[in-house]
Amino acid sequence: MRKKFIVASVLLLCAGGVSLFAQETIESLGFSLDVVWLFTGAILVFIMQAGFALVETGLTRAKNATNITMKNVMDFCFGAIVYWMIGWGFMYGKDALGGLVGSDQFFFSGMDVNWTNAGIYKSWFFQVVFAATSATIVSGAMAERTQFRSYLIYTCFISAFIYPISGHWAWSSDGWLAKLGFHDFAGSTVVHSVGGWAAFMGAAVLGPRIGKYIKGADGKVTVKAFPGHNIPYAALGVLLLFFGWFGFNGASTLTSLGDGGIWSGANISRVCVTTTLAASAGAIAALIFSWTWFKKPDASMTLNGLLAGLVGITASCAVVTPGAAVAIGLIAGVLVVLAVEFIDKIVKVDDPVGAISVHCICGIFGTLAVGIWANAAEDGVVGLLHGGGAAQLGKQLIGIVSVGGWAAVTSLVLFFAIKLVVGLRVSAREELVGLDLSEHKSEAYSGFQIFSNM
Amino acid sequence: MRKKFIVASVLLLCAGGVSLFAQETIESLGFSLDVVWLFTGAILVFIMQAGFALVETGLTRAKNATNITMKNVMDFCFGAIVYWMIGWGFMYGKDALGGLVGSDQFFFSGMDVNWTNAGIYKSWFFQVVFAATSATIVSGAMAERTQFRSYLIYTCFISAFIYPISGHWAWSSDGWLAKLGFHDFAGSTVVHSVGGWAAFMGAAVLGPRIGKYIKGADGKVTVKAFPGHNIPYAALGVLLLFFGWFGFNGASTLTSLGDGGIWSGANISRVCVTTTLAASAGAIAALIFSWTWFKKPDASMTLNGLLAGLVGITASCAVVTPGAAVAIGLIAGVLVVLAVEFIDKIVKVDDPVGAISVHCICGIFGTLAVGIWANAAEDGVVGLLHGGGAAQLGKQLIGIVSVGGWAAVTSLVLFFAIKLVVGLRVSAREELVGLDLSEHKSEAYSGFQIFSNM
Amino acid sequence: MRKKFIVASVLLLCAGGVSLFAQETIESLGFSLDVVWLFTGAILVFIMQAGFALVETGLTRAKNATNITMKNVMDFCFGAIVYWMIGWGFMYGKDALGGLVGSDQFFFSGMDVNWTNAGIYKSWFFQVVFAATSATIVSGAMAERTQFRSYLIYTCFISAFIYPISGHWAWSSDGWLAKLGFHDFAGSTVVHSVGGWAAFMGAAVLGPRIGKYIKGADGKVTVKAFPGHNIPYAALGVLLLFFGWFGFNGASTLTSLGDGGIWSGANISRVCVTTTLAASAGAIAALIFSWTWFKKPDASMTLNGLLAGLVGITASCAVVTPGAAVAIGLIAGVLVVLAVEFIDKIVKVDDPVGAISVHCICGIFGTLAVGIWANAAEDGVVGLLHGGGAAQLGKQLIGIVSVGGWAAVTSLVLFFAIKLVVGLRVSAREELVGLDLSEHKSEAYSGFQIFSNM
Repeated sequence: MRKKFIVASVLLLCAGGVSLFAQETIESLGFSLDVVWLFTGAILVFIMQAGFALVETGLTRAKNATNITMKNVMDFCFGAIVYWMIGWGFMYGKDALGGLVGSDQFFFSGMDVNWTNAGIYKSWFFQVVFAATSATIVSGAMAERTQFRSYLIYTCFISAFIYPISGHWAWSSDGWLAKLGFHDFAGSTVVHSVGGWAAFMGAAVLGPRIGKYIKGADGKVTVKAFPGHNIPYAALGVLLLFFGWFGFNGASTLTSLGDGGIWSGANISRVCVTTTLAASAGAIAALIFSWTWFKKPDASMTLNGLLAGLVGITASCAVVTPGAAVAIGLIAGVLVVLAVEFIDKIVKVDDPVGAISVHCICGIFGTLAVGIWANAAEDGVVGLLHGGGAAQLGKQLIGIVSVGGWAAVTSLVLFFAIKLVVGLRVSAREELVGLDLSEHKSEAYSGFQIFSNM
Repeated sequence: MRKKFIVASVLLLCAGGVSLFAQETIESLGFSLDVVWLFTGAILVFIMQAGFALVETGLTRAKNATNITMKNVMDFCFGAIVYWMIGWGFMYGKDALGGLVGSDQFFFSGMDVNWTNAGIYKSWFFQVVFAATSATIVSGAMAERTQFRSYLIYTCFISAFIYPISGHWAWSSDGWLAKLGFHDFAGSTVVHSVGGWAAFMGAAVLGPRIGKYIKGADGKVTVKAFPGHNIPYAALGVLLLFFGWFGFNGASTLTSLGDGGIWSGANISRVCVTTTLAASAGAIAALIFSWTWFKKPDASMTLNGLLAGLVGITASCAVVTPGAAVAIGLIAGVLVVLAVEFIDKIVKVDDPVGAISVHCICGIFGTLAVGIWANAAEDGVVGLLHGGGAAQLGKQLIGIVSVGGWAAVTSLVLFFAIKLVVGLRVSAREELVGLDLSEHKSEAYSGFQIFSNM
Repeated sequence: MRKKFIVASVLLLCAGGVSLFAQETIESLGFSLDVVWLFTGAILVFIMQAGFALVETGLTRAKNATNITMKNVMDFCFGAIVYWMIGWGFMYGKDALGGLVGSDQFFFSGMDVNWTNAGIYKSWFFQVVFAATSATIVSGAMAERTQFRSYLIYTCFISAFIYPISGHWAWSSDGWLAKLGFHDFAGSTVVHSVGGWAAFMGAAVLGPRIGKYIKGADGKVTVKAFPGHNIPYAALGVLLLFFGWFGFNGASTLTSLGDGGIWSGANISRVCVTTTLAASAGAIAALIFSWTWFKKPDASMTLNGLLAGLVGITASCAVVTPGAAVAIGLIAGVLVVLAVEFIDKIVKVDDPVGAISVHCICGIFGTLAVGIWANAAEDGVVGLLHGGGAAQLGKQLIGIVSVGGWAAVTSLVLFFAIKLVVGLRVSAREELVGLDLSEHKSEAYSGFQIFSNM
């Protein structure tokens, strides 16, 4: 009997051993799977730099094409380095001042080199591409008249200070907005509005391009449009942004594991569906609205409508129904057309590509949308239309105002400081010649006959 | 003794508990892994929209560049919305009429919002990009002369009705072609031929571009070629299509799990190998054949040869050997050159980019290729050359004829109806001026000196 | 008692059965996960073909744009076919001659068609895109004057013989350099230097473009710069290369599994961090260095600086700290500017895009960097600065000299042979007209006014 029992015990221990081993390997597989999804997502977000570069190049004039592409390449490069040096520590370092700012891990200090840091390396890689997105938004609104050197300075400040600190509020688990219950899934406010506010302040401090607003003898101001020099670039750029946005939103679950709740792998599916529908609805709304208004299916308005739908759904993509995503997209698409006209004609801030309307205005709207359409009772994020009352809407407003205020004030100070110390704008002669020849001493399209378009 | 036995039982339950937990997590990991692969695939297929946009833009004239890119952007946007509203339900809803059509899930009706629908959301996201591909094929063949508004109407019909219904036949498990044993792995027929037939009917109903076929005094017709305005766009587009096709074919296993059979994760490897080889062989064959025939290594023929190889292998990529893939690619590469010449010079249907030849003709050939080279006895798909007799070839023919007939007849009716009700073609003056200025009131390349190329 | 014991045994067997099943499925999941990551990586590397095509097109003249894009498309197509026929067998076939060359699996011979070969198919698909990268590097250095037909011949030889044989030395587990302890993680030497040496020999044998070096009456040679015709193409190309490089380096762990050591999934995170930082530092260094030297923030130098950082980190990305990655990138960025000037002005080899400097010079530096900064004691790869002495540096030097010598000598012989048998260079008239019209009988930009730029 004893002998048999020993046999049984040995078998039992084997079984236990095997299943413990299995369990260990399952955790390891889970980590691997997260790396694969998060990195696929991060790499997709990276290519959005090319999307922004093409949209901004396509919608501006040929004489500034080298300059604008160089700005978009270099803001990633400088952004990545300063986000490693400073930004990451402010955003995700140990919380200080009660949720206001992170305070360690600058230069990855205190970290070992190797794979034992896989967790932090993984998170940094996913975050650095978001920081770069926020910075690159600004280049479009300030295109065709900003000094290259000044651009590099302010892009460093955005990636090192402005973006990470408000990012800490909303996305660090110890951030005060996160604790409040502010919900911004992939960054309508944290990324897009921050970039959009900086874009607005930059374009305002800089002033309009020469010839944009011309005062007639009668005192009336004529607003001139400078058509972009390559619409296929702009369209390709928008498609690359749409492509990358599946990583931007889709991988913001931060995991591909688990089958319950907003922040689980199972929710990736909903995120990609709502992202697709909102972007499509945004383009359709902007197309039809601009077609009705201007009597033509306007290419740049429609492309901006698609981006508006994407920015609009970014905060709420994980907590709304497909139907709500369509509604959000449609509204964002109309809103962006109104905003472009309003900023161009009434506010008279010259934003060559519509970046302020797309990222700031639709970023604000998208953040509010959470308070209206959210339908994730299981995770405590419920909006007005689903019985949550105004509570979530209130939290969203606090986030919009505090993050927007922070980004607006700090970037305003930054641009004035740069203007005073090194200068922000090129000379009139340089602007008229074009920044490619005046700043980079080369043409973007050597050999092509191009007419000056003042 | 009893005490010891209790200890043993407890240990045993622990072991069982751990392994049950492990098992549960394994299923969950499996689902996560499928989401990651399927979504990576879907996102790759999405960027094929940019590929199509660039190929069609590059191979047509500068005066229509805004128009053609806008068509390619908007067919995805309208397609996604109608595929959510209607198309998905017809394709994958509950079968009705004995395998003929799906009948529920319109607007995702009856579905809860959240992650508990991950399964259906996942499938929809993977399917919507295929629907968009089918629709976007048409724009190339009808380029440079179709009204923007008419384009939007027919693209909605293709994504809502034409594509989903024949798609139900072949790809829904209850579809009559699926039950018959028709094998079209990733859609040589289901996607490409459907788009190709619609392209043919559209181009035929529309008529040729002005100046394409000129009748001389002697009654002889001269066929004019309108060279494309940007070959690098076309080449970049083809490379993006090739890139996206790894998702198109590679993720059509619909899972990354399992190690047996056509529809298992293990087969992804074979699919990517055959896809690579067939595309490469297609380009080489078209290059050498056109070089021999026209005495020059023709760029657009070669690029179409690469696409021909891709379309040709799409149906059979999961069931053939690498050697067979090379053979299929070589044949498709020659076939596409012959087809382009035949349609252009003999049939005299004006297809500016060769879409009919690439997608319809090579789609038919690729579907037949399954009946010839298939070598998947374990799954019951065996072709002529591997001892399967003509049985599979017969099934393939039934699929080609029925799906092709459906697409041809419905699209013919559709184009005639549009022609009658709203008009299909722009005026001669608008066509000569170019659709960018006449339809969109803007140039694609503002500032550039461009000569009219009638 | 016996009855209870039987019950216990049954329960026990169930538990064991479940956990054995779980274990089996875990292995299967692991394989699936590796396929997903490796294929995502391979597909990313594939799109580097588009990156190279755009960089080379953008930095050369409009009259050769069709030609250079076609070369970049076709070197992949021919490369894939010959790598299937011959190259793979030489690189990863059964070792022969004591680590010198592989000797079987040509045409996948001896392999069954189906998913049971998933392992070899998987490896081939990941390797073929690296082989294509090595070959495509050459086209840039030999741009604007090489016959299309000769280009196709030498690209086949590189993908079939030159690259695979030295690749066998370093990357096959039986290769003599692998056994020696030479460490080249993703191919600074194996891929980039091999391509770079072939580029150098090709450009040298070919001679400079007409008008590049003009001897004055006083015997002094004036070096002319031919500006590229599309800087946005070049910038987009560099961003696509950066994008693809995350697959190139990131998936070179060859697995996404495991949490220990260089070649484990956990190390993917470090690889992507060091890759991002080195590329960024390279661009910044080249920007600042060229700005200081030439008094302008030069676009093409900066873009090459980014690529220099990427090539520089490729060998060491898995074994260095983030700080070391920044140092490597900064040095590579300065080095590439010096190298471009040195080769252009002193060596007087005409390399239109700087391919030799980026891939050969920075590839050599990157391989040495392992011997200096490596910090992976757990895997036995330790450099000078981390207490490893000169041992690793010595191994790296042996690899650089042997692989470089192999590539230089064989490609020199190859180019001379082609020159003798079929001719390597187009005629002076064809070169002046441009290769698009003279070789392909078509313009790249039909309709655009383009001035000749001799």
